[in-house]
Amino acid sequence: MSSTVTSATPSIVAAVRAQSPLVQYLTNFVSMDVAANVLNAVGASPAMVHDPHESGEFARLASAVGVNIGTPSPPWVEGMIEAARAAHEVGTPWVLDPVAVGATSYRRRIVAQLLEHRPTVVRGNASEILAIATSQAGGRGVDSDASSSDAVEAARELARDLQAVVVVTGVEDVVTDGARTAIVHGGHPWMPMVTALGCSATALVAACCAVEEDAVEAAVAAMVMLSVAGERAGARAAGPGSFRVALLDELAALDDVRVASARVDRS
Amino acid sequence: MSSTVTSATPSIVAAVRAQSPLVQYLTNFVSMDVAANVLNAVGASPAMVHDPHESGEFARLASAVGVNIGTPSPPWVEGMIEAARAAHEVGTPWVLDPVAVGATSYRRRIVAQLLEHRPTVVRGNASEILAIATSQAGGRGVDSDASSSDAVEAARELARDLQAVVVVTGVEDVVTDGARTAIVHGGHPWMPMVTALGCSATALVAACCAVEEDAVEAAVAAMVMLSVAGERAGARAAGPGSFRVALLDELAALDDVRVASARVDRS
Amino acid sequence: MSSTVTSATPSIVAAVRAQSPLVQYLTNFVSMDVAANVLNAVGASPAMVHDPHESGEFARLASAVGVNIGTPSPPWVEGMIEAARAAHEVGTPWVLDPVAVGATSYRRRIVAQLLEHRPTVVRGNASEILAIATSQAGGRGVDSDASSSDAVEAARELARDLQAVVVVTGVEDVVTDGARTAIVHGGHPWMPMVTALGCSATALVAACCAVEEDAVEAAVAAMVMLSVAGERAGARAAGPGSFRVALLDELAALDDVRVASARVDRS
Repeated sequence: MSSTVTSATPSIVAAVRAQSPLVQYLTNFVSMDVAANVLNAVGASPAMVHDPHESGEFARLASAVGVNIGTPSPPWVEGMIEAARAAHEVGTPWVLDPVAVGATSYRRRIVAQLLEHRPTVVRGNASEILAIATSQAGGRGVDSDASSSDAVEAARELARDLQAVVVVTGVEDVVTDGARTAIVHGGHPWMPMVTALGCSATALVAACCAVEEDAVEAAVAAMVMLSVAGERAGARAAGPGSFRVALLDELAALDDVRVASARVDRS
Repeated sequence: MSSTVTSATPSIVAAVRAQSPLVQYLTNFVSMDVAANVLNAVGASPAMVHDPHESGEFARLASAVGVNIGTPSPPWVEGMIEAARAAHEVGTPWVLDPVAVGATSYRRRIVAQLLEHRPTVVRGNASEILAIATSQAGGRGVDSDASSSDAVEAARELARDLQAVVVVTGVEDVVTDGARTAIVHGGHPWMPMVTALGCSATALVAACCAVEEDAVEAAVAAMVMLSVAGERAGARAAGPGSFRVALLDELAALDDVRVASARVDRS
Repeated sequence: MSSTVTSATPSIVAAVRAQSPLVQYLTNFVSMDVAANVLNAVGASPAMVHDPHESGEFARLASAVGVNIGTPSPPWVEGMIEAARAAHEVGTPWVLDPVAVGATSYRRRIVAQLLEHRPTVVRGNASEILAIATSQAGGRGVDSDASSSDAVEAARELARDLQAVVVVTGVEDVVTDGARTAIVHGGHPWMPMVTALGCSATALVAACCAVEEDAVEAAVAAMVMLSVAGERAGARAAGPGSFRVALLDELAALDDVRVASARVDRS
């Protein structure tokens, strides 16, 4: 079944802007700036609070938590585990971004530890999702060698295994809980040339989970936001530098009519 | 008493550009990039030197020091204390930015430790200044729930208590040493949608303190820089992404005539 | 001998885009974002992997490694040494960026340790290169007080001492292995007003070394990329903010014809 707009997306986009959810994001050094600006642009309130001295305490206050392992080190991992544990304990949605999980043994161990605290959503590229699904090494960094469509079946199985929603971003974005699957089309070829847009997608999923209990609908809304803003930004940019700037402008300008232009296939 | 321009502001703006003061800024991971670019744009020379192995040594060379607790962790706090101690010892002005001090007990302890080293200026939003003034928890992150005008009286008292200049940024920016108070108008509604502009304001206060001994005048000049550049940037931007880019262009283009358009009320 | 284009540059620029080399860059917090975007813009694949738990393992997978000491602390230095050691052991080119080496004793010790692992290229501004060459304190941060032409002779000697290629960036960029020397002209006066473009130059040298064994030619190609993109960006920017955005667009649009406009003197 295909639809030009999902029923829940416009109300989720509006709810993020109306409620301005506090999103705690423990993320890598590369993405701090753009992810915070992406959250601000859609009306959420970003808080980068990572140290174990406060990350658990803060997670109990936050409306949603994101955990991104892009530039891990022991104190950060400890802080991530504290935040994930606290979020799980109090029932706050949290989203895992397993950056380059297949690249080193250190990252595989970190992801295994974090999965014990039951993420609401796992968001990665195809290589990362396949690496978790197969528990095998693969991928060479944040860029994806596999396509997201290759990963659809693996994502469905992983979602059932983890009892979580799995999001695979790429040329098309896949959202699945193992039973329901949505494919979000759109975006722009410059998106992979801008660093940390994957990390920013994770932040948007967290923001949408803060205002919508159905994590499939929340993740679809987040992917639609990026796809629609990305298409519009691509139409007025001259390259990846101006694309990133225009993307923030377009995220801030998202409304019902613009969001309704998204193409989403559901099955 | 209201004036369209303060007497000292144009000469402070010119002095920053002429002297290119070396500003050491120990700041959070989110603001590193934009704060360094803001300092560069006005002609200052940024240096992000944070580790306790060198932060005190470097503070003795710097013309001013900024300390921002946005993403704290124990080694960073140690480096901040070393820098603050060194700055105070050699009489170098230093500026404290108590990001989200009300949000966690860890931040309250850090700010209490840093205040022992007698900052020249404390710059925060209304929630942060009120949290210090009342030593009570409050605020939920870097966004301010309280308005800056609510905080004027608290800021005056805090300035007298600390024997420091207190700056409260918001829709209007308040600068006070407890006796003199200045209100700087201007800026643009997109400013709170761009991350780390508060952190950048702190950096500009430090840069101005490096060239002007009267910290009230230095802080007013810094607020005028941001307000005037922000108004001009808002007039040619399409959203928060292009606003941030235009803000850097406008900061780099500030001159006597442009600075003279600022509205400052003094009492 | 002067030439409007070096023979190897166009093929190196094309090879980076065709091969998309994986460039591990252990860099400072200020430059993470822009350096990653610069690498993406020219077609390379950035990976910011710094912790000693994985930096050596990852360096064995990478096509080139960059090490930048801009915001050092003990765990980062340990990770840098692991990466440099691994790169040297497996014969992967690695590039050292000795940010502000003259400013503190801590930085001088770090650079001395890293030099033991034999960098392929050392890239700095004139003050930094002179500080290493003379092993004396000097310079006050990332800004250069000395001009790059002052540093040419020192760079030649240092290159012979280290058996490495030395790159001195400034108004003109100098590339030398002690025998051959190339001077790359171009760029734009706004380049020093944009933070982390030196760090990004180091990243580009690493990317070019990944596809070209002759490190002099690799470094010249990297400097040509920045010079040509910088000149073109300057022609359409309104200040340092829009210059940085335009620079990324222009790096992504580099081709044979544009690269051929570079002015390079060789001796």
